[in-house]
Amino acid sequence: MGNKALQQLNDAVQVVLQRARQQVLAQMGTQLTVAEKTSRKDLVTNVDKSNEHFLVHELRRLDSQAKILGEEGLGDTVTSMSGHVWIVDPIDGTMNFVHQRNHFAMMIGYYIDGVPTLGYIYDVMADRLFAGGPDLGVTVNGNPLPAPADLDLTDGLFGASGPLLIHDRYQMQAIAHASLGPRIMGSAGIQISQVLAGELVGYLSYLRPWDFAAGRVLAETLGLAVSQVDGEPVNMLSSGAVLIATKSAQRAILTIVR
Amino acid sequence: MGNKALQQLNDAVQVVLQRARQQVLAQMGTQLTVAEKTSRKDLVTNVDKSNEHFLVHELRRLDSQAKILGEEGLGDTVTSMSGHVWIVDPIDGTMNFVHQRNHFAMMIGYYIDGVPTLGYIYDVMADRLFAGGPDLGVTVNGNPLPAPADLDLTDGLFGASGPLLIHDRYQMQAIAHASLGPRIMGSAGIQISQVLAGELVGYLSYLRPWDFAAGRVLAETLGLAVSQVDGEPVNMLSSGAVLIATKSAQRAILTIVR
Repeated sequence: MGNKALQQLNDAVQVVLQRARQQVLAQMGTQLTVAEKTSRKDLVTNVDKSNEHFLVHELRRLDSQAKILGEEGLGDTVTSMSGHVWIVDPIDGTMNFVHQRNHFAMMIGYYIDGVPTLGYIYDVMADRLFAGGPDLGVTVNGNPLPAPADLDLTDGLFGASGPLLIHDRYQMQAIAHASLGPRIMGSAGIQISQVLAGELVGYLSYLRPWDFAAGRVLAETLGLAVSQVDGEPVNMLSSGAVLIATKSAQRAILTIVR
Repeated sequence: MGNKALQQLNDAVQVVLQRARQQVLAQMGTQLTVAEKTSRKDLVTNVDKSNEHFLVHELRRLDSQAKILGEEGLGDTVTSMSGHVWIVDPIDGTMNFVHQRNHFAMMIGYYIDGVPTLGYIYDVMADRLFAGGPDLGVTVNGNPLPAPADLDLTDGLFGASGPLLIHDRYQMQAIAHASLGPRIMGSAGIQISQVLAGELVGYLSYLRPWDFAAGRVLAETLGLAVSQVDGEPVNMLSSGAVLIATKSAQRAILTIVR
């Protein structure tokens, strides 16, 4: 895809996300329908579903070749990264959405034959839209976002996962202790956006493809490291412990984990 | 103090805090001077100091009998809660202020002969000012705040402290696991305000007087429980593990801690 076509697509996706945000804000004024998925800590609402339905429909309209993997299963069954693959999380941080009406995000990642191409993280209540990719750079609400400083783990706040910190998986307690302090927001989208903005030095959590597809594109574009917790490359069609961090913090964290 | 005088004082303090916010926002555009206090995780900036100086000066102007206890020591040495005592935290969450330019609060608590009288928590970047006390009720940006629902621990998100969760003090890992999930924001002011708004079911942390003086007034006004982690009453002139929660969540948490 040429750069002009990519920029047009990038603009169009941002318009779609702004429309999605307005619809979600309107739905927040009405009674939510909340259901448990795998446990009492894993929720889905009518808004997750209606927003995924909207995003899938709009992405198909923009990209006739689209294969779309959505968290709520309203897209396609995607078994390979060949061709044009969109990975969609309509509401990331549904628990926060239900209990806080804050701290949730919409995310979209776009890969062509497995190559990270475009990414979007929209912090809905802060109205902060991170967008872009390797050919276009990263913007926040249309303004260029500079790459964050390559801070070491000891010089920054660390984005933790509640379950991994409680159960000390991957030495997360030692990692948090080595940093300036752990933060837990309960949303991969929010915490990855904070790494992009230099507000966290890294983020480690057990993630599914829609949790990190967008963040990977944006983070790599900004020179951040994205890997599995053992340092190996991530696989966009499987789940696992994913680390997104400055390169210096990644080195320090991998040393602690090993 | 009569209710009319109290309301006038309440209005005046909110005006002072709005002026303080404007000054802090202006200072955020300039280079910060950051120093360590007791450790690399305990910071103070020129803005903490200048804002405490401003707040102490303005509170003295409003209340000629004021004894003022400030985090940065620019007020008085306060050894008793007799008379009019103001307890001030000019920037709560200084680490966030320095590294995130977000998620910090200004707090003021007002006690007359030890009786909780007025409280203020100002989430600066969200521009969300919680204000009031037992005689006036609680408002957010001037709008009455209803008491949060009396949710049980299992039905809400739990506000945790990073150090206490990492080191599992007071069974904090079990408490977090029993809840719908832990959240760590790194600011007592921000997390207590989330309990007030019903966004967290409780918050437990090791706190100093200026960390909870405001929150105690506001929380008790809204029918929330404020106690030490052993269930005993808090002492406004000493530090310790303080729990602010719905009454149902407090019962559940005290059972886990004991």
